[in-house]
Amino acid sequence: MAKIFAYGIRDDEQPALNAWREANPGVTVEFTDQLLTPETAKLAAGFDAVNVYQQLDYTRETLAALHEAGITKMSLRNVGTDNIDFDAAREFGFQISNVPVYSPNAIAEHSMIQMSRLLRRTKELDAKIAKHDLRWAPTIGREMRMQTIGIIGTGHIGRVAMKIAQGFGAKVIAYDLYKNAEIEAAGLYVDTLDELFAQADVISLYVPGVPANHHLINADSIAKMKDGVVIVNVSRGNLMDIDAVIAGLDSGKIADFSMDVYEEEVGLFNIDWSGKTFPDDKIADLISRENVLVTPHTAFYTTKAVEEMVSQSLSADLAFINGEVPSIAVEY
Amino acid sequence: MAKIFAYGIRDDEQPALNAWREANPGVTVEFTDQLLTPETAKLAAGFDAVNVYQQLDYTRETLAALHEAGITKMSLRNVGTDNIDFDAAREFGFQISNVPVYSPNAIAEHSMIQMSRLLRRTKELDAKIAKHDLRWAPTIGREMRMQTIGIIGTGHIGRVAMKIAQGFGAKVIAYDLYKNAEIEAAGLYVDTLDELFAQADVISLYVPGVPANHHLINADSIAKMKDGVVIVNVSRGNLMDIDAVIAGLDSGKIADFSMDVYEEEVGLFNIDWSGKTFPDDKIADLISRENVLVTPHTAFYTTKAVEEMVSQSLSADLAFINGEVPSIAVEY
Ligand SMILES: NC(=O)c1ccc[n+]([C@@H]2O[C@H](COP(=O)([O-])OP(=O)(O)OC[C@H]3O[C@@H](n4cnc5c(N)ncnc54)[C@H](O)[C@@H]3O)[C@@H](O)[C@H]2O)c1
Ligand SMILES: NC(=O)c1ccc[n+]([C@@H]2O[C@H](COP(=O)([O-])OP(=O)(O)OC[C@H]3O[C@@H](n4cnc5c(N)ncnc54)[C@H](O)[C@@H]3O)[C@@H](O)[C@H]2O)c1
Repeated sequence: MAKIFAYGIRDDEQPALNAWREANPGVTVEFTDQLLTPETAKLAAGFDAVNVYQQLDYTRETLAALHEAGITKMSLRNVGTDNIDFDAAREFGFQISNVPVYSPNAIAEHSMIQMSRLLRRTKELDAKIAKHDLRWAPTIGREMRMQTIGIIGTGHIGRVAMKIAQGFGAKVIAYDLYKNAEIEAAGLYVDTLDELFAQADVISLYVPGVPANHHLINADSIAKMKDGVVIVNVSRGNLMDIDAVIAGLDSGKIADFSMDVYEEEVGLFNIDWSGKTFPDDKIADLISRENVLVTPHTAFYTTKAVEEMVSQSLSADLAFINGEVPSIAVEY
Repeated sequence: MAKIFAYGIRDDEQPALNAWREANPGVTVEFTDQLLTPETAKLAAGFDAVNVYQQLDYTRETLAALHEAGITKMSLRNVGTDNIDFDAAREFGFQISNVPVYSPNAIAEHSMIQMSRLLRRTKELDAKIAKHDLRWAPTIGREMRMQTIGIIGTGHIGRVAMKIAQGFGAKVIAYDLYKNAEIEAAGLYVDTLDELFAQADVISLYVPGVPANHHLINADSIAKMKDGVVIVNVSRGNLMDIDAVIAGLDSGKIADFSMDVYEEEVGLFNIDWSGKTFPDDKIADLISRENVLVTPHTAFYTTKAVEEMVSQSLSADLAFINGEVPSIAVEY
């Protein structure tokens, strides 16, 4: 009987883990909320594969300890593999998988919800209502359908975002280095980023944070945008020169801004800073602004996405155990 | 030259008023921020028509004062005409118009934004972030696309709401006393309200507050809904027995609730209660709940809607002045 040991299982992952167990009665799945370290690697002894999700590094030491415990099959519940020592993994003969596509909708929906909230000034209105000021003026909203929404990147997530924007009745334009046939046929592409900057009332990013895209949004590109532009970034923090964005907010060039990602987010996001001082003073400033919505990389965080991350990774573990290569195996 | 005098013009209405003026250079439009009363009626002397929007009653005295000032043409910038003394209006020979359809999207968008926010637990997450707690767990969201969204009432606003829900990829079902041909052809109608209650994860109302619909949502109908149902009401407060809704929230039967309207909203909404005591203790309770979003009848309040209210009503004034009957004339 196949046996999988899962690390770092959060409460919100347990329903999905139990559902997978029920659907696969021939497999034993045990788990801990502890992360995988050289010490906890021992817990997996006697199992056939491990299942993991952590920001903590998968070091040579950790992988050696797993290998020692007889484990060389490891399925990640998330996409990122930057924290794996692949040289060591190669040496120990590890088979690894990740989950590159779990729910594009989770991220696309979040971006559009935050966009619509900025247009509707919900942060300002919510604050008024919380202090029992029930006057509506002057907190007037704008409608999604009246906007020209510029989508940068028409991959998995950007395409879902476009569908949502179209459901609202907005005018959607898009830019991508590589054109998607369906979107091209619908005539939605502009030819250059500059055209998108010139036409869009709202700009939302769905491109990877590769070096070529470093600070795609900077003082120069912001200058090319419409006055009072609204910007949404759920993709990667390094896509933006945040100082230029803050300057744009200060001058009013940028009317509203939503960010789920931040260049300096490692060691900042997913931590409780209440009563403490942030390592960075920009983040407190951004959080406090009425026309800025900050979320700590939670766009992906839906029950559906978590279900996919858990079930796809456990199924990949099982495939490895059965001597198969799952479609989501990491080639390295 | 035609001359129109407008009462109760708010700051957010002035851009639309100025735009209409520019588009109609042959017409003089003057305005005040004061409401129309027997006293202020004198301000309109010498004009051909008035333009108004207020909750304050249009009493016999007020209409007599307008008539005295030579005015018998009155265009409302809003839809409601309940506050007009029609007997007096008839006696003085008033021609009246209102704006029944200004922007169904304003209301439909608001309902869907609030719905998506409830599913995403933004009130809880926003509060965490405001106090610098940047941990995402356990504030996990649900996706719109995974929901069966039940639309009650497929008139102007309900139909726009359906399009938005479909853009998110949700399964949409609908119920109306009178079927819309397009929605029927798409196979989206269920035959009874009970079927909708049984199938919908989320229920949103778009029906008028006529006596027949009084407390459509009550303890009985709530009992027929799914456990953990999400309810959104942007239509009329009297559609709900609010005590039954509160009981449903307390028991967990209703997971989340958004309301833009409230049976006892007159004399409560659009007033600053900060530092004062609400006339009603339910509203403070509802506002304070993490899983409830209250807005004070602001669903309509967008720049586009205000633009339509101002421009349609001024054009109706002008039609009356030119001896025409505008399509939005009120028959009484
Ligand atoms: N916030 C979150 O929780 C979260 C979760 C998952 C993914 N993401 C991020 O979302 C982004 C999009 O992910 P995806 O799955 O849609 O990726 P994808 O690979 O499917 O699509 C990316 C698209 O961007 C295009 N592209 C790359 N550089 C470009 C440029 N300079 N200009 C125009 N187009 C360019 C590519 O051609 C491709 O079509 C990524 O940055 C990813 O890291 C965020
Ligand atoms: N919150 C706001 O700012 C705001 C602004 C404008 C309108 N509204 C409200 O929105 C609601 C919908 O407005 P609309 O313009 O779409 O109206 P509409 O007249 O176009 O459509 C209403 C629909 O409800 C249907 N209906 C009536 N009773 C029903 C019942 N018991 N069961 C099923 N269907 C029923 C009718 O057949 C009709 O199709 C109204 O209550 C209106 O007062 C709210």
